[in-house]
Amino acid sequence: MTRTERTYLDWNATAPLLPAARDAFVAALDLVGNPSSVHGEGRALRMLVEAARRDVAALVNAAPAHVIFTSGATEAANLVLTPNYRMGRTPLAIGHLYASEIEHPAIREGGRFSREAVTSIPVTPAGVVDLDALETLLQNHDKASGLPMVAVMLANNETGIVQPVKAVAEIVRRHGGLLVVDAVQAVGRMPVDIEALDADFLILSSHKLGGPKGAGALVSRGEVLMPVPLIRGGGQEKGHRSGTENPAALAGFAAAARSAADEPAVRNSRIAGLRDVLEKGMRAATNDVIIHGAEVERVANTSFFSLPGLKSETGQIAFDLEGIALSAGSACSSGKVGQSHVLTAMGFDAALGGLRVSLGPGSTMADVERFLAAFSRVVSRRRAA
Amino acid sequence: MTRTERTYLDWNATAPLLPAARDAFVAALDLVGNPSSVHGEGRALRMLVEAARRDVAALVNAAPAHVIFTSGATEAANLVLTPNYRMGRTPLAIGHLYASEIEHPAIREGGRFSREAVTSIPVTPAGVVDLDALETLLQNHDKASGLPMVAVMLANNETGIVQPVKAVAEIVRRHGGLLVVDAVQAVGRMPVDIEALDADFLILSSHKLGGPKGAGALVSRGEVLMPVPLIRGGGQEKGHRSGTENPAALAGFAAAARSAADEPAVRNSRIAGLRDVLEKGMRAATNDVIIHGAEVERVANTSFFSLPGLKSETGQIAFDLEGIALSAGSACSSGKVGQSHVLTAMGFDAALGGLRVSLGPGSTMADVERFLAAFSRVVSRRRAA
Repeated sequence: MTRTERTYLDWNATAPLLPAARDAFVAALDLVGNPSSVHGEGRALRMLVEAARRDVAALVNAAPAHVIFTSGATEAANLVLTPNYRMGRTPLAIGHLYASEIEHPAIREGGRFSREAVTSIPVTPAGVVDLDALETLLQNHDKASGLPMVAVMLANNETGIVQPVKAVAEIVRRHGGLLVVDAVQAVGRMPVDIEALDADFLILSSHKLGGPKGAGALVSRGEVLMPVPLIRGGGQEKGHRSGTENPAALAGFAAAARSAADEPAVRNSRIAGLRDVLEKGMRAATNDVIIHGAEVERVANTSFFSLPGLKSETGQIAFDLEGIALSAGSACSSGKVGQSHVLTAMGFDAALGGLRVSLGPGSTMADVERFLAAFSRVVSRRRAA
Repeated sequence: MTRTERTYLDWNATAPLLPAARDAFVAALDLVGNPSSVHGEGRALRMLVEAARRDVAALVNAAPAHVIFTSGATEAANLVLTPNYRMGRTPLAIGHLYASEIEHPAIREGGRFSREAVTSIPVTPAGVVDLDALETLLQNHDKASGLPMVAVMLANNETGIVQPVKAVAEIVRRHGGLLVVDAVQAVGRMPVDIEALDADFLILSSHKLGGPKGAGALVSRGEVLMPVPLIRGGGQEKGHRSGTENPAALAGFAAAARSAADEPAVRNSRIAGLRDVLEKGMRAATNDVIIHGAEVERVANTSFFSLPGLKSETGQIAFDLEGIALSAGSACSSGKVGQSHVLTAMGFDAALGGLRVSLGPGSTMADVERFLAAFSRVVSRRRAA
């Protein structure tokens, strides 16, 4: 039975385009020209791009000049993750990348670092980065190879678990390293402030925030220490990222950023309320549901659970047939339903896998009720099987 | 005097979004989901992406499986221009890049090649690649370093001059090299067939074709010999290009590709007629206008001219104030009005510079008439000065 009425509970894979972002995006589509052209058409688009830069910067308390727009978060990750930096014009080597085991594949693949130059930072069974292990890794870092770089996400995409980035930063500073924070799943869902986090770089994505796909940003703390460009050419983005800018996508990204900055506490408290109902409902329906990270700090919108006896592939298809779009962890691997590396890192039985419900500003109590009705049916069928 | 009525004659910088591309793009915006998700929403977007792949492949007579979507042509250039290839799983080295002097900066910057591994192929005063010089360069290529790679564009972005790619391919084949063809300014403006050109890779851009910004493609001849990925992560595009796909932009790109494939000869003959009127009108207004490449094969839509006594910066601003958007060569360098490297390569006085008029399917005789009226005024003022 495929239901035509659909309930979208996969906001961490991609958020539906916000009406404000859609309006800004579509309005900008009809502006003709190339923002790098010097004629009137080009200058109007340039103003749009620079206004977008201010909005995105403001969302994370950064200077607009420190926002490099990219085609998305994965490109931003590949830009920042490189052994080749420059301090002004002087080359500066990054010797090794330490990335937490639960990072998104865009980080775990290590960008332009060779495989040998990347080491995983373990996480505790609670799903947070193991600070003692990080300390030991950095104590043993070979300084002769160059500076250490540490990559730790702010909120995990599968579990929603908030990582202790400030504590990570304190350790990284002590060892003279650079800190890259993937804030893709955090912005809009919790306060993100590059200064307060003491991060050197933040990675942002438009479409996880309700903006259009095809836009992201690398936000830096300063302008002096910067990665060697990934994409070279016409010299756009002050030479850090060549290629014609995408003003419409950036206008949409900016509108989503403004929306995310608008009363986030009120919005997220409502979403947390929905998630609490959802999780209580699951526990009421069956006493063996395991909700990952329920005992630690999570962003408000994510619930990652496992049901003994229900493989995540089976569960995902069952919910899809019930009209519910949710995911078995991250969506990033081209339709593959693989094992969750996050659950593996937490020491959980990853073969069973998990299912992720993720909510957003457009989610309603009716969505939660439809999910819980489907959940009961899936649980009953599991018992019957 | 700034006129509010504007005439857009800068289609080579970016083409106005075609109505069909806009419709396809906006319709796809409202499809919720991530094309890599396995639920119904994800699968619908996956179908859209794969349909786009077929349309883009068909435009250049390639197999759909040989189209890698990127965020644009500059990214595609940086993907293909690398010393590190794989033949299946076996690493294969490209020793040196030979790129024509008149390539776009996205090519001339050399992608992932070091500066020392890039050599320019000169062009003749007529603005076409010097085949004898290429032959000599490849004869002297150090095979021990790896295969030679040659990059020659099909139509130049500034002059519109068509390059002898088939003859280039014949030389490259004889020396066992790889041929990369930047077809960004050629598709839609002349027939482009990867097989007929005997190219190994083609680079395409959506927004130069009337599609949205933020989409491009690297099209390959086969699947065996491929560049090491530029952007790593979730493994989208069969691992060749990670990052969430942008189905709306790709649907728009595909619509532009279908439109470009629709009676191209009729469309381009009309555009060539407009350009002929424009060039005759310029010659009638002043006998010292120099039209670059008028004596060789050009795409139908481009006219690049110089007026002795009128610097290109001054000319561009003068036309802008007359309500005419045109460019002083390429728009790619972030608003900088630099010297034209194309004119320099052709041995022309590049300090004077040139002005580029570029037309498109939406251009009209009224546009040409407005341009010629402005041209007369600019010429008169030049005499008066």
